[in-house]
Amino acid sequence: MARRKKVYEGKAKILYEGPEPGTLIQYFKDDSAPTAAEAAPAAVEGKGVLNNRLSEFFMAGLNAIGVPTHFIRRVNMREQLVRMAEIIPLEVVVRNFAAGEISTRLGIPEGTPLPRPIVEYYLKDDRLTLPMVAEEHIVAFGWATQQDLDDMIALALRVNDFMSGVMLGVGIRLADFRIEIGRIWEGDYMRLIVADEISPDSCRLWDLRGLVDRGDGQPIPEPGPLADVYTELARRLGVLPSNVTHTVKPTLIN
Amino acid sequence: MARRKKVYEGKAKILYEGPEPGTLIQYFKDDSAPTAAEAAPAAVEGKGVLNNRLSEFFMAGLNAIGVPTHFIRRVNMREQLVRMAEIIPLEVVVRNFAAGEISTRLGIPEGTPLPRPIVEYYLKDDRLTLPMVAEEHIVAFGWATQQDLDDMIALALRVNDFMSGVMLGVGIRLADFRIEIGRIWEGDYMRLIVADEISPDSCRLWDLRGLVDRGDGQPIPEPGPLADVYTELARRLGVLPSNVTHTVKPTLIN
Ligand SMILES: Nc1ncnc2c1ncn2[C@@H]1O[C@H](COP(=O)(O)OP(=O)(O)O)[C@@H](O)[C@H]1O
Ligand SMILES: Nc1ncnc2c1ncn2[C@@H]1O[C@H](COP(=O)(O)OP(=O)(O)O)[C@@H](O)[C@H]1O
Ligand SMILES: [Mg+2]
Ligand SMILES: [Mg+2]
Repeated sequence: MARRKKVYEGKAKILYEGPEPGTLIQYFKDDSAPTAAEAAPAAVEGKGVLNNRLSEFFMAGLNAIGVPTHFIRRVNMREQLVRMAEIIPLEVVVRNFAAGEISTRLGIPEGTPLPRPIVEYYLKDDRLTLPMVAEEHIVAFGWATQQDLDDMIALALRVNDFMSGVMLGVGIRLADFRIEIGRIWEGDYMRLIVADEISPDSCRLWDLRGLVDRGDGQPIPEPGPLADVYTELARRLGVLPSNVTHTVKPTLIN
Repeated sequence: MARRKKVYEGKAKILYEGPEPGTLIQYFKDDSAPTAAEAAPAAVEGKGVLNNRLSEFFMAGLNAIGVPTHFIRRVNMREQLVRMAEIIPLEVVVRNFAAGEISTRLGIPEGTPLPRPIVEYYLKDDRLTLPMVAEEHIVAFGWATQQDLDDMIALALRVNDFMSGVMLGVGIRLADFRIEIGRIWEGDYMRLIVADEISPDSCRLWDLRGLVDRGDGQPIPEPGPLADVYTELARRLGVLPSNVTHTVKPTLIN
């Protein structure tokens, strides 16, 4: 393959020019960016390989039920081919249970079920640290239109229904997650698609397995984070590549 | 417990008066009613026990993401407590892949992915054999209003997103399913909820496990029905009761 042009290098991924106009190659690194929804460990060996598989699994599943995403196909262990989108500079967070920022900001104990899924927006701007913004700011500053926002909410809630289902199927609670959304054009027609990645780096996952009432009067334990989340999630979903033989161990580098 | 009043006995379930007004006890039998979406075997030993668990699993999961259902709680191996609803006399079918009636009626080969999820209605009337009806008939005959239909479609599509996710999580394709929807009143306010059951008797499930390209030039096998679907689904979802020791085997009685 001829030398590819690097388009962008972020914390978790590198983007290369794709083989055709309007496409990109997304390369998954082992490093993580801390996110609004979850502060992930800084680097985890082999994580990129698993996130590549996991994001493929979720995005292909969303495509199949008619939730449009950027995903075209996985190319190799660390790379996937995606449609290039004009990213809306917001992290769209959907929360089912209070945790992290909403708990701190509003004084809601971690683990509290929310009255309904709550959609929040955090501004993606490298000079800032993901400040929360309201629809008012988004429309006033022109990051998205009111129509975009309505479509983004509908998209985010469909992703939530699907992802909550996937996770529940394998004994996991989806407490919250974040997605990025981008615009693509098909002729004159613009539509919004789910871009970036869906993986343990963008989801807060709590393990529900083994939380049974033992009938001995002891309280049922609270669901907590999954140990070895990348490997465990890939294993439960049946996408653990057989040639990823080593166990992924968190290695905090900061 | 005092002798309960039987409210209705159908093919698959018995309804008893519940402990409080506005509630019912749903008793799951081992017999199946043939449905619009799937012709199930006529009786399967132990099936009622598993469908009680499975319907609990799906309905509780839907409740948790804010899709209202009749499910309150499971009472014992074969019974669950539900909210009494005024059932809209329609089976609402959502199809992701062509199979069964839509394949026959429209000449679409089984297994063909549909351009988008298709919502259909079949009239529940004991004197008839679940004839398909259009929105036109439903509104004209007053089975539901146009507003009900809009709400029913939204509900059915959310159930589809969630259930597609649950199934995909455990390596299963949700080809189609049917639900019943009912009205409940909260003071003067009417809303629609998912009623009846969600189980292998109401879902067409195809197994995706092991369908890998072996790289030997042979075509990838097509997904087909799950063997021993009640047990296998309950096992994959982790709700197989440990005291259901026997294997559920299909026993065709007709
Ligand atoms: N389909 C796409 N088209 C264009 N840009 C994308 C697409 N998907 C993701 N991106 C962008 O690629 C970058 C992914 O790299 P990442 O390491 O996650 O970056 P960051 O550190 O900025 O979060 C993000 O800036 C994201 O907005
Ligand atoms: N929450 C509910 N309130 C009232 N009726 C219900 C509720 N859930 C299900 N039903 C009704 O209970 C019956 C379930 O029994 P089933 O054996 O499946 O009947 P059928 O043979 O009519 O399909 C159905 O007629 C269904 O419409
Ligand atoms: Mg990122
Ligand atoms: Mg029935």
